[in-house]
Amino acid sequence: MTAIYRRAALIGMGLIGSSMALAMRERGLVDEIACNAKSLRTRTTAAELGLADQVCDTPEEAVRGADLVVLCTPVGTFRELAERIAPELETGATLTDVGSVKKRVVESVGGLVPRDVHFIPAHPLAGTEFSGPESGFSTLFDNRWCLLTPSKDVDEAALSRLISLWTAMGASTEIMDPDHHDLVLAVTSHAPHLIAYTMVGLADHIKRVTNSEVVKYSAAGFRDFTRIAASDPTMWRDVFLGNRDATIEILGRFTEELFALQRAIRTGDGEHLHEYFSRTREIRRGIVDAGQDTSAPDFGRLPSRKN
Amino acid sequence: MTAIYRRAALIGMGLIGSSMALAMRERGLVDEIACNAKSLRTRTTAAELGLADQVCDTPEEAVRGADLVVLCTPVGTFRELAERIAPELETGATLTDVGSVKKRVVESVGGLVPRDVHFIPAHPLAGTEFSGPESGFSTLFDNRWCLLTPSKDVDEAALSRLISLWTAMGASTEIMDPDHHDLVLAVTSHAPHLIAYTMVGLADHIKRVTNSEVVKYSAAGFRDFTRIAASDPTMWRDVFLGNRDATIEILGRFTEELFALQRAIRTGDGEHLHEYFSRTREIRRGIVDAGQDTSAPDFGRLPSRKN
Repeated sequence: MTAIYRRAALIGMGLIGSSMALAMRERGLVDEIACNAKSLRTRTTAAELGLADQVCDTPEEAVRGADLVVLCTPVGTFRELAERIAPELETGATLTDVGSVKKRVVESVGGLVPRDVHFIPAHPLAGTEFSGPESGFSTLFDNRWCLLTPSKDVDEAALSRLISLWTAMGASTEIMDPDHHDLVLAVTSHAPHLIAYTMVGLADHIKRVTNSEVVKYSAAGFRDFTRIAASDPTMWRDVFLGNRDATIEILGRFTEELFALQRAIRTGDGEHLHEYFSRTREIRRGIVDAGQDTSAPDFGRLPSRKN
Repeated sequence: MTAIYRRAALIGMGLIGSSMALAMRERGLVDEIACNAKSLRTRTTAAELGLADQVCDTPEEAVRGADLVVLCTPVGTFRELAERIAPELETGATLTDVGSVKKRVVESVGGLVPRDVHFIPAHPLAGTEFSGPESGFSTLFDNRWCLLTPSKDVDEAALSRLISLWTAMGASTEIMDPDHHDLVLAVTSHAPHLIAYTMVGLADHIKRVTNSEVVKYSAAGFRDFTRIAASDPTMWRDVFLGNRDATIEILGRFTEELFALQRAIRTGDGEHLHEYFSRTREIRRGIVDAGQDTSAPDFGRLPSRKN
């Protein structure tokens, strides 16, 4: 494949940054990869794993001469990073990111980007519960969505070029308004994560049930929550602080709904419960039909001892 | 293997009943299997699949001559079933169940069991989001726990015999007090299920986010909730009504904890969030270490298009 960009600078080498490096390299999508990471340890690991052609000590150094710059750090760092790299960005370069919130990114980074640089925020909906440069893999974005939230006056050629990169990395892309992105993600990702974090944290507090009991009997449902509650703490702190309003709105609706079900349990309203649970089953069916999950029963199962 | 029981009667042929039939048959644990199911359709399917030696039209007929009777229907049906089968139970037989709540079962069934029958409530922590006689498989109980809640004066020989059946079907067993069982399960199973049901049902209500958006972008976290929110509606209605007090207690604690995190988001208390999320990550580690889940990243992933 002909390279889509000449030099890509990846700022941040966690799960997403390292996966992008591997995907771009493996599929020949860029001629050269430069990267930077805040900690020496991550830079050393990135160099050892050969994730980039140049592992730079500073973000300024990494972005010099790059026609694609990708912010892959937690969103709370974006403003300071943008301030530092803005003077170094090449004319005609594309600046993008992979942050899970978009309105805050547009507000905090948008104003700092030089006029001759194309700023196109993006969010690949891909991840695992692991983090760090050693957790990346080149197929992370296969069959996943990447949402782009460009401004209305975006340069069409720059947008097409970024879209072709994400497509070549395996993702399907969609253009969205930043506000709508944040609301959709509050429903499909941010609120579910906070709820999972809450349930898992709660289990740690119930004195009459020991932690070893929680762990032993977790396959009965709790386990499904723990995977997402094991996600990177810094990234998620920044997500919630960065998408505060939509997250709190959805959590409010969640609590309302939870109270209604709790009331049905208390008053013995079995009909209400049954109707509700039948409806949620339909939604699951929609997700499996849309290819966003497998219908294999209980996908978290361990390999059987006997078979 | 020498058969552990002569004739097992399975009342109810859903996921658990059919899996028990397959496991007992495949491993030679009983000489003969009789079964009953309420609906003609389930009985017909059970007969077609050859799940039992005799598919009986009534529970009374199924239990006649059985030295093991297992109630595998939703717990809300147990009382009426016990009334019907009690006069037919053989002297020395063991009556057990697979219900997800135990205190209510002890109360509603216990008093109806003849003195010469051993009543030993049980709960295998195994399941998938599928139900019905065609969803069973013989390895469902492998590496799973089965909790038994016998009374203090239980016949030790009868208890050992039932334990050896569960062990032979692949499970590890533990003896527990019914009250404690219900609290442990409220934490590890019932509250998580209700929360998942709530989150999935909620997504259906947010007008500004379409259902197709929820489905498309579900891999970002929401998806992990939908599997357990696809579980059998009748079974779960009965679980919540049958374990009302413990479930409501845990939900109250959950809401308290959720409000504290919500407040941290509103006030921008990043430190609180980060500390909380780091702790939940540890709990996940404990579950993986205990062999109750796999550490393979993102176990719900579809097979890659490219690899």
